[in-house]
Amino acid sequence: MRPAGSVAYVTSILLTGFEPFDGETVNPSWQAVLRAQALWDGPEDVHIAEIPVDFEACDRALADALDRFRPDLVIAVGQAGGRPGISVERVAINVDDARIPDNAGFQPVDAPIVPDGPAAYFSTLPIKACVEALTQAGIPASVSQTAGTYTCNHVFYRLMHTLQADRPDARGGFVHIPYAPEQAAARDQPSMSVELAALALLAIVRTSLDVAVDTRAPGGALH
Amino acid sequence: MRPAGSVAYVTSILLTGFEPFDGETVNPSWQAVLRAQALWDGPEDVHIAEIPVDFEACDRALADALDRFRPDLVIAVGQAGGRPGISVERVAINVDDARIPDNAGFQPVDAPIVPDGPAAYFSTLPIKACVEALTQAGIPASVSQTAGTYTCNHVFYRLMHTLQADRPDARGGFVHIPYAPEQAAARDQPSMSVELAALALLAIVRTSLDVAVDTRAPGGALH
Amino acid sequence: MRPAGSVAYVTSILLTGFEPFDGETVNPSWQAVLRAQALWDGPEDVHIAEIPVDFEACDRALADALDRFRPDLVIAVGQAGGRPGISVERVAINVDDARIPDNAGFQPVDAPIVPDGPAAYFSTLPIKACVEALTQAGIPASVSQTAGTYTCNHVFYRLMHTLQADRPDARGGFVHIPYAPEQAAARDQPSMSVELAALALLAIVRTSLDVAVDTRAPGGALH
Amino acid sequence: MRPAGSVAYVTSILLTGFEPFDGETVNPSWQAVLRAQALWDGPEDVHIAEIPVDFEACDRALADALDRFRPDLVIAVGQAGGRPGISVERVAINVDDARIPDNAGFQPVDAPIVPDGPAAYFSTLPIKACVEALTQAGIPASVSQTAGTYTCNHVFYRLMHTLQADRPDARGGFVHIPYAPEQAAARDQPSMSVELAALALLAIVRTSLDVAVDTRAPGGALH
Repeated sequence: MRPAGSVAYVTSILLTGFEPFDGETVNPSWQAVLRAQALWDGPEDVHIAEIPVDFEACDRALADALDRFRPDLVIAVGQAGGRPGISVERVAINVDDARIPDNAGFQPVDAPIVPDGPAAYFSTLPIKACVEALTQAGIPASVSQTAGTYTCNHVFYRLMHTLQADRPDARGGFVHIPYAPEQAAARDQPSMSVELAALALLAIVRTSLDVAVDTRAPGGALH
Repeated sequence: MRPAGSVAYVTSILLTGFEPFDGETVNPSWQAVLRAQALWDGPEDVHIAEIPVDFEACDRALADALDRFRPDLVIAVGQAGGRPGISVERVAINVDDARIPDNAGFQPVDAPIVPDGPAAYFSTLPIKACVEALTQAGIPASVSQTAGTYTCNHVFYRLMHTLQADRPDARGGFVHIPYAPEQAAARDQPSMSVELAALALLAIVRTSLDVAVDTRAPGGALH
Repeated sequence: MRPAGSVAYVTSILLTGFEPFDGETVNPSWQAVLRAQALWDGPEDVHIAEIPVDFEACDRALADALDRFRPDLVIAVGQAGGRPGISVERVAINVDDARIPDNAGFQPVDAPIVPDGPAAYFSTLPIKACVEALTQAGIPASVSQTAGTYTCNHVFYRLMHTLQADRPDARGGFVHIPYAPEQAAARDQPSMSVELAALALLAIVRTSLDVAVDTRAPGGALH
Repeated sequence: MRPAGSVAYVTSILLTGFEPFDGETVNPSWQAVLRAQALWDGPEDVHIAEIPVDFEACDRALADALDRFRPDLVIAVGQAGGRPGISVERVAINVDDARIPDNAGFQPVDAPIVPDGPAAYFSTLPIKACVEALTQAGIPASVSQTAGTYTCNHVFYRLMHTLQADRPDARGGFVHIPYAPEQAAARDQPSMSVELAALALLAIVRTSLDVAVDTRAPGGALH
């Protein structure tokens, strides 16, 4: 990871969030990513990119960010309205199945993200260690066994597919965060402050930089 | 409400929260009450009292606070672990039915709070206006049709019973708040930051001082 | 309860269910009541009445059934879409607050059912013994602390108000049942077969006839 | 699929269910499989096998059943306590992560099911057509994006891995069913009668035999 030569290598971190969708005016994933970058005080560089909720355009936005920042660590972040805590995703699957159209009006059903690509990719983050770091910091968190089949899963799958091909030493994964309180105000749904979600992202970054071999702790689901 | 004489009358507000119970080390209702008092900048006096989770001792603690502060407005606050937002309670019922023992080890079952007391009291807060103020401020909130049958309902019932007898011009009601994030960290449960819960209490106080006749807005439940 | 004279007195039982509402084509409460009557093989008479989902007309329908059948026991039944099991209701409150219009297009908000009536009535069924009988029979059931604020609570309140005035020796209460499977098919919601719901009603009838003093068992809610 | 010669080929169907686990005395998946076999009246042969909730022994039990019955269609069935309807599973992932020990006391954490096996297999059932058939028959059902990480997912993964290698023309998939009512009786959890679950399995078998190309209908999840 450290190029030869006299210039000190600085670890590059990429955080991505999504633009608003489904009639919302904000997307807390992008707000949390912005706030996490502002709070970051480590020696590593934290770069950010906003990804469109658009099954086609999201690929280009992700590819551009990967090209530009050449990250050693990528945490893609999305909104999971209705979930009560931070979800550290375990696996991305090779299918788009959109319950609602994307922001461009496109609604793929049961289409592969990468034709002839593998059925799934596992996160290469230390997901158990991340959840442990969050809960010890008092932040509600758990491992999730599905990132859905919408643009979040799409970006997660595309990210892992690209990293494996182009940047095999880089780590990557996906994190879902709850609604922001203002989104949940008119619903009977759980929420989390953007500040706490940003602190969660920082803890996940730090853990992913520090923990080489994941903790051995049950985090599965019976079904 | 304003006594004759030359001394300016200052409106007295009482906020109560509960001590921790059920193995918890904190109770966000008390934390939020403390924070709400600290944030208050109105001309009215905001007094606070911590109430034990104890079916007997809570009566004395409440009576002492009412005697001492002679409030014009009382907002009793409790923790509702598992609820996703602020619950403005509609009604207190005349029964103790404890699923777990209280902090003194007492577990009443189907016992009246006030023998021969009325079956229920309605909140005299403008509950719909409070919910509207909260949701407009971006704070998840709804009317709740039940405060349970534990010490929260007990204190709510006792409060309304006492106010009706002793301070009929005073307004009173009960508000349930979610787990704090640190409590929800090890569970898969919703939470709300204490800061946001405190802001919610301030909005409820302000609305209860300002709105004489409640808003006409549906806030019921089909079942 | 037994009138003088040479004619043997037969205990009269009234079961009521509701007509469909909220766009549904069936209401499992009425289906279960029909089925329960068909299954009944006791010496007591089981009468049934279908109640309109109409805040005005339901009063007349209930009054007519009470006049006609002069019941010793009344179990009013309603649909609680979303609940996973049988709910034996504890309390009816004196308020109509309709989240959706009734079948006549009427949508009362925060209106008393009986002006100057008591704030609430408790069920006079042995609710804990009923829940115990159901769970021992393998039927999911629990005590519920709220029957909502729609026509179910309205009929429950009106029933208890009328019984107290006119038939003080009669027992009465309210039971909520889940969606039928066909209603839940297009939703991600729990359901219960009408057959099982009918068996539940029979067990509640039998328990209410047999158990004079309710079981002492915790069945409350923390909030 | 039809061997040459004069003997008429009879399509072979295998349904598997699980033994009880986690302290339960029944497993509705096995009860439903038994009942489905009893109800089957098609010309095809329906074979059944009970699979242990044991990460090691389940592989042998599955392999034995596949060897013995040489099925053209396999529907593996498991219990998903807490889910409200039938879940037609989309994908099996290559990981065991047991939240509780299996019936042999073994609790694998983050271990691959097949070392160097693909990260996931998709069901080869027409999952959307199956869900459509169920909901049209009035049976609550949906596509599920995760079969968990316990023995259900394990058997599902192992089934698809084996079919791909040994019986590439055979179709296979996994179906989760809710608790039986008797299991949910002591919990506040959804349930489904075993009879209805058995009818659901028959509809899934029939649809899987009849529908070659799956219906194009959204059935995904936003997260």
